[in-house]
Amino acid sequence: VDADDAQRVNALLEPVHGADIADLIEQLTPQRRARFVRLYSGEFDAEILAEIDESIREQVIEQLPAEVLAEAVRDMDSDDVVDLVEDLEGPEREVVLAALDESDRIAVEQSLNYPEHSAGRLMQSEVVTAPEHWTVGETIDFLRAEDWLPDQFYHVVLVDPKRHPVGHVTLGRLLSSQRETKLADITEDSFRTIGVLEDEGDVAYVFNQYHIISTPVVDADGRLVGVITIDDAMNVLDEEHEEDVLRLAGVGEDSHVSDTAMQTARQRLPWLVANLFTASLSAMVISLFENTIAALVTLAALMPIVASTGGIAGTQSLAVAVRGLATRDLNKGNARRVVVRELFAGLLNGLGLAALLFAGGFVLFGDPLLGMVLAGAMMMNQIVAALAGVLIPLLLRRLGLDPALASGTFVTTLTDVMGFFVFLGLATWVLL
Amino acid sequence: VDADDAQRVNALLEPVHGADIADLIEQLTPQRRARFVRLYSGEFDAEILAEIDESIREQVIEQLPAEVLAEAVRDMDSDDVVDLVEDLEGPEREVVLAALDESDRIAVEQSLNYPEHSAGRLMQSEVVTAPEHWTVGETIDFLRAEDWLPDQFYHVVLVDPKRHPVGHVTLGRLLSSQRETKLADITEDSFRTIGVLEDEGDVAYVFNQYHIISTPVVDADGRLVGVITIDDAMNVLDEEHEEDVLRLAGVGEDSHVSDTAMQTARQRLPWLVANLFTASLSAMVISLFENTIAALVTLAALMPIVASTGGIAGTQSLAVAVRGLATRDLNKGNARRVVVRELFAGLLNGLGLAALLFAGGFVLFGDPLLGMVLAGAMMMNQIVAALAGVLIPLLLRRLGLDPALASGTFVTTLTDVMGFFVFLGLATWVLL
Repeated sequence: VDADDAQRVNALLEPVHGADIADLIEQLTPQRRARFVRLYSGEFDAEILAEIDESIREQVIEQLPAEVLAEAVRDMDSDDVVDLVEDLEGPEREVVLAALDESDRIAVEQSLNYPEHSAGRLMQSEVVTAPEHWTVGETIDFLRAEDWLPDQFYHVVLVDPKRHPVGHVTLGRLLSSQRETKLADITEDSFRTIGVLEDEGDVAYVFNQYHIISTPVVDADGRLVGVITIDDAMNVLDEEHEEDVLRLAGVGEDSHVSDTAMQTARQRLPWLVANLFTASLSAMVISLFENTIAALVTLAALMPIVASTGGIAGTQSLAVAVRGLATRDLNKGNARRVVVRELFAGLLNGLGLAALLFAGGFVLFGDPLLGMVLAGAMMMNQIVAALAGVLIPLLLRRLGLDPALASGTFVTTLTDVMGFFVFLGLATWVLL
Repeated sequence: VDADDAQRVNALLEPVHGADIADLIEQLTPQRRARFVRLYSGEFDAEILAEIDESIREQVIEQLPAEVLAEAVRDMDSDDVVDLVEDLEGPEREVVLAALDESDRIAVEQSLNYPEHSAGRLMQSEVVTAPEHWTVGETIDFLRAEDWLPDQFYHVVLVDPKRHPVGHVTLGRLLSSQRETKLADITEDSFRTIGVLEDEGDVAYVFNQYHIISTPVVDADGRLVGVITIDDAMNVLDEEHEEDVLRLAGVGEDSHVSDTAMQTARQRLPWLVANLFTASLSAMVISLFENTIAALVTLAALMPIVASTGGIAGTQSLAVAVRGLATRDLNKGNARRVVVRELFAGLLNGLGLAALLFAGGFVLFGDPLLGMVLAGAMMMNQIVAALAGVLIPLLLRRLGLDPALASGTFVTTLTDVMGFFVFLGLATWVLL
């Protein structure tokens, strides 16, 4: 790329899959990326464009010649076009939409009318349907005559005269049945539809839970408006996981490996500043006990042990709870049992750690009282940590918020404050 | 269930999907679970059994009557049987295998010979193949005549006389082509095979990256041995995410919402004990500066601010790096650039936080020197945190270990130790 050798770039990338080219583009520095897109623009196709990460898509699209962009967009299924267009601003969006055929444009514009992260944004409008009274033979003849079929489809959806889906037939079933068989006799038991307004996270859950490969989407009147396929659901699942991991760690979910240092710093600063304030709470708690510390400075050295082990326990409990909520393994039916379990698990580990600390404190300082203070504070903080880790995400969920959001900061603040308070409080009471 | 009313249980669960019944069973307490399985055993089918979580599968299988188990197992595809059998001990494994037909048993036993977490364990041995010279018509006639076809299949795999896969045709293509069309003329460009020994995580990546729906698995000689479908890949992706989230938080990856308090405590204790030792490092560092603290007790109250904000920054950088490694967005090609980016992001946020802390320290304590100590320590610790968050997982990966493993403990230990050391060290030097 640096040598500006378009031919060599094209030759090298000839055998490479579009998704890998997209990854390559993401990994370049912004300057090189611009040069690469210019050099390679002749070969830019639908596949590369669909795979490029949102964060840099706009930059790439701006640099593509209008006719290359139009060509690529015309080759895409409607769900990929929607995915592309929804991140674009006014003028670029118009260019893309103008490149589409009349009917495709209407389908895309209709999808864009559905709320973000809804099934309506995820679906493609190209659906293969058949009237419910057709036979296998009629269906095959119909499919052979059509030339607009989607790249990939897995079912023929049976619709009644009002376009309400009433069942679907797998292509495998269609191929292995005699021509005179009625479609209605070989539909799948597991048939279900998805509402166009359902949240994409719920859609991904349904696909994963019931091993669905593709399923029709219906509007409020129960009429067929599109179909969602498993590869889109897999993508959503992947993105939701990313969101959870990053949110739990207090990073904006839009962060990406291709971001610049400035973008990275800006995404992370809010949580760091928030932590500065919550950490000041700890500092205030400690300053209540300055006299105690002045009397026995060793306490200052020992206090982070109780606080940090509490932080770890809280993080453990939190990860299990957030993950359980995401997979719906943790729900109303068993929330109480899980909370009780966390309480006892915290108690058990608190006892174990307390025994270790007591022994350590006694051996190192020869002071059984100091050992008892350490052990008691550790036990209480472990219980607080285990409970906070599960109760805070449950509470956030109850409030309609994402349980992964901010939970980490809340939990560690609580374990820090409690750790310092209980340890120094006990020390003041017992040792002075 | 508590009323021991088998008929009511059966009636209530009649319309419920097998996967949901499996979830229900997971959420019961062990005693109720046993009673439920006894009551419901007549209706236990392949679907429920395949969906039950590994952690309780053994308990459930022990309680099922042998003939119900045999019936359920005969209805499963070979990959689900493998998944079931690989977790079972000697006698139960024999019972399940004995229930299978001769040919199915051989297929399952062969799969079990492949290493755990390999493509060989994931694949199903039922593959629909056709000789490469067949036409569409011949293939359809063949499919209509066969009665052993898998529940779901998405491609017909073309094989040469030695059973080497040479391409595949989607069922949609097959259905929409004329009978006289040659299969070889309508194969997919995107065709690729997977080696039977490939790691399941790599398989899931390939499915997600290239939007594959199903793909043949070949042995070392390139001969077809099975096929992997996207629903299995989606499952692996989901499990790998779970592993990452739990490992990052220092929880054993086998943890599950249905675990008892004792199991939970045991899974978490090792990391808590490890943290006890690493926290003792912090305590030792602090105790080096006991004289400084004795002279100015306020330092004891302020020191957690620097350490904990460093911990948050380290966790942020770590989450992005671990996630990037998992999705391969972070790789050899851009590792250096990402490390440099983290360095600068850490510097930028360090500057911002330092400015805030300096202002705060000056306003609260009226002491510019104390503000400077706070600011300086914060800046250094932010840089250390940002670098450690990306370098430690890269190093673990280089050593062939899972980057999610233990990274959290390493990073927060480092930020704690550095935070205390730099802050108290600077304070000793500047203030005393």
